[in-house]
Amino acid sequence: MNRDLISELAEWIAIPSVSADPDRAGDVERAGEWLAEKIREAGGEAERIDWYGQPLVVGEIAASGGGKAPTVLCYGHFDVQSAAPLDLWESDPFALVQRDGWLYGRGAADDKGQLLILLEAVRSLARERALPVNVRFACDGEEEVGGHSIIDFLAADERGADACLIFDIAMIERDVPVFTTASRGLAYFHLELLSGERDLHSGVYGGAAMNALHALVQTLAAVLPDGGSLPEPLLEGVVPPSADELASIAALPAGAGVLAEQGARPSDPGAEADFYLRTCALPALDLNGIEGGSPHLQKTVLPVKAEANLSIRLAPGQDPEKIARVLERLLREAVPTGAELRLQLLSASPPGLVDQDAPAIQLALAAFERSFGRRPLLVRIGGTVPIIHALESAGIPAIVTGFDLPDGNTHSPNERFWAGYVEPGIAAAREILSELGKL
Amino acid sequence: MNRDLISELAEWIAIPSVSADPDRAGDVERAGEWLAEKIREAGGEAERIDWYGQPLVVGEIAASGGGKAPTVLCYGHFDVQSAAPLDLWESDPFALVQRDGWLYGRGAADDKGQLLILLEAVRSLARERALPVNVRFACDGEEEVGGHSIIDFLAADERGADACLIFDIAMIERDVPVFTTASRGLAYFHLELLSGERDLHSGVYGGAAMNALHALVQTLAAVLPDGGSLPEPLLEGVVPPSADELASIAALPAGAGVLAEQGARPSDPGAEADFYLRTCALPALDLNGIEGGSPHLQKTVLPVKAEANLSIRLAPGQDPEKIARVLERLLREAVPTGAELRLQLLSASPPGLVDQDAPAIQLALAAFERSFGRRPLLVRIGGTVPIIHALESAGIPAIVTGFDLPDGNTHSPNERFWAGYVEPGIAAAREILSELGKL
Repeated sequence: MNRDLISELAEWIAIPSVSADPDRAGDVERAGEWLAEKIREAGGEAERIDWYGQPLVVGEIAASGGGKAPTVLCYGHFDVQSAAPLDLWESDPFALVQRDGWLYGRGAADDKGQLLILLEAVRSLARERALPVNVRFACDGEEEVGGHSIIDFLAADERGADACLIFDIAMIERDVPVFTTASRGLAYFHLELLSGERDLHSGVYGGAAMNALHALVQTLAAVLPDGGSLPEPLLEGVVPPSADELASIAALPAGAGVLAEQGARPSDPGAEADFYLRTCALPALDLNGIEGGSPHLQKTVLPVKAEANLSIRLAPGQDPEKIARVLERLLREAVPTGAELRLQLLSASPPGLVDQDAPAIQLALAAFERSFGRRPLLVRIGGTVPIIHALESAGIPAIVTGFDLPDGNTHSPNERFWAGYVEPGIAAAREILSELGKL
Repeated sequence: MNRDLISELAEWIAIPSVSADPDRAGDVERAGEWLAEKIREAGGEAERIDWYGQPLVVGEIAASGGGKAPTVLCYGHFDVQSAAPLDLWESDPFALVQRDGWLYGRGAADDKGQLLILLEAVRSLARERALPVNVRFACDGEEEVGGHSIIDFLAADERGADACLIFDIAMIERDVPVFTTASRGLAYFHLELLSGERDLHSGVYGGAAMNALHALVQTLAAVLPDGGSLPEPLLEGVVPPSADELASIAALPAGAGVLAEQGARPSDPGAEADFYLRTCALPALDLNGIEGGSPHLQKTVLPVKAEANLSIRLAPGQDPEKIARVLERLLREAVPTGAELRLQLLSASPPGLVDQDAPAIQLALAAFERSFGRRPLLVRIGGTVPIIHALESAGIPAIVTGFDLPDGNTHSPNERFWAGYVEPGIAAAREILSELGKL
């Protein structure tokens, strides 16, 4: 066990850099400064910059050989989730503790522990004068609150990189590592349906006056998945999974079990078998909320206003603006004559897709397999990970992997990182960095 | 103007018999006692009885000729709506005031004023020894709160009657009187759709896990009217309007205008032309409320619980239990596999239908026309009036009419009765009672 590294991690974890807590803004900055100092100690250059009020740490450790070398960007984040509820922790969240083979503490896995592993790989190679690539660091302090300072930084950055290496995710299960190959986007709408000036008595007008709840139901029914399939126009642009991704899916836990574990039922008979396609490789439309009239009190009212929140997860390859327009068109076409639809696009995030054929990805996969003894599965993420799209837009192949585990309790009390993965993590990162020297 | 009658009405209105206000229970009883005393003063018998905690006034004034005579039941109610908001009244609601040809006061029209007109007709005939029918009074003090003491009384009453005369409604417009020929029933449901154990993240499970809001929308869409028509099985039992009713509908204000006046829009292109059929002679299904998930806050949640209130107005002729079962079957058939529907029938009220061919109705129509100079239109009511069904069940033809006006402000501040209708009202009631002697 790398005792120096553990004590460094303890020091970093002791800085409670909870980005969701405005009172901890100073700690977030201190955690960033701590990282910058480590990069400088390793012989690199680094600074904590203020990006429109948000701290970013930007640094660089030069390739050992000097001269022309590929550039690898290392991304990670130095902020952490809140530790609440504190009473469920078995030890102080901000004091690193080793117990039963785990390293406990807020940030031990997400992401201080994993970012430090990455840093250790870089600086050890640099120390040995064996770092074949220029390593740039760009790390943020608002990943846990969905901030976009790193996204904006990447968009504005002119230097670019030949690859980006990120250690911030979990394996599927112990010793089953993954590379993330895509993430879904999101278009989120609020809609209102209005059908008249005031609520009416259903005895007097029921059967003749328009009911906004009917208009809502009829409008929404037209866009909901039918037997698991969304209306064809909403599928435009979908990039289907590669053969490698399909092979990886076959190695994942059965969808039926994943749903059952959550007490969830399949949306339709095909949803269990197609679980990963449905949740990662296809768009998914979900009604997130509905409201109108008197749902509890027995009231014979004919409501004239109904509201809903409706969102669509966008598959890799889809364009948020285009799909949002299609969805709006489908909704407007379905609105009964006389009802008025007010539609508001609350947010839109693009999906992200990693070019798996890029040499950087293929080199990294081979390096990881060689070092760890198992080739990572290629897995898409159903949620939205903006940095994947940002790197795609910048033309930087993203190697998104990690050594966290599903039972690592990230975002929960008793967050922990499997201590046995510290050395394999460093070794894999070293191997990847070395291999990327060939770019 | 019948000055004694006006001062009697003033006395009665001064008793604030607001049935919705528990503190006024004593006043409701006093108002009933006042009525009973008037019946006794007219030479009849009357008592205020306690019907399982609710006051009913039951009395009788015998036919003048003695011997065998038809029996006419007179129904009215001696409770009133609350006068709130008081600051919108131009005079004390419980002090009868004459102004601009109107009699102002809470209950002036609904129903003390009209019930007193009926009583005056009966007692004047009795005084003149010209009352050809036995008149029974059965009046309640909880009409405005939807109580069922009068319904239960009628169901238990063994004496019955040959007709029932009720003055408790409004004309269509000035000098356009109506007889009510039917009222719709109501079956009111609360439903819940459950699709899993807990709300889920739409990024991780969206597309594969069942969403309760989808199940709700898909279930409800199956029973909503399509182009103005409900699913065929929900029409079972409907008794279509008679030729007289259809002719009356043609004389009513155009449906388009009625809707426009309320700022309402037609539910479909045929709803304006068919306004009265839709709202009075056909069942109408209305979603009264829906709720689920996060309708305002932007949350990427996949909700597992959705709720709705759903009711169906039953057309005359329909059986509430039968239609409730049909609706339940249609809903259950539409529930997507895997979702669980919990359905609760909150209330069921039967529709009511008057047998227009009954001699009592035809005699009363002719009598009203002869006295008032205009034949009443035969109009169905879209709401629920339980006493119509109760009388139908008891086999008593119900003559439901009145001299209230659409701008009489019943249930609103400044309730008023057109003073010019006091004498014509008495005259019409006298003529009807006299004519019913032929039964």
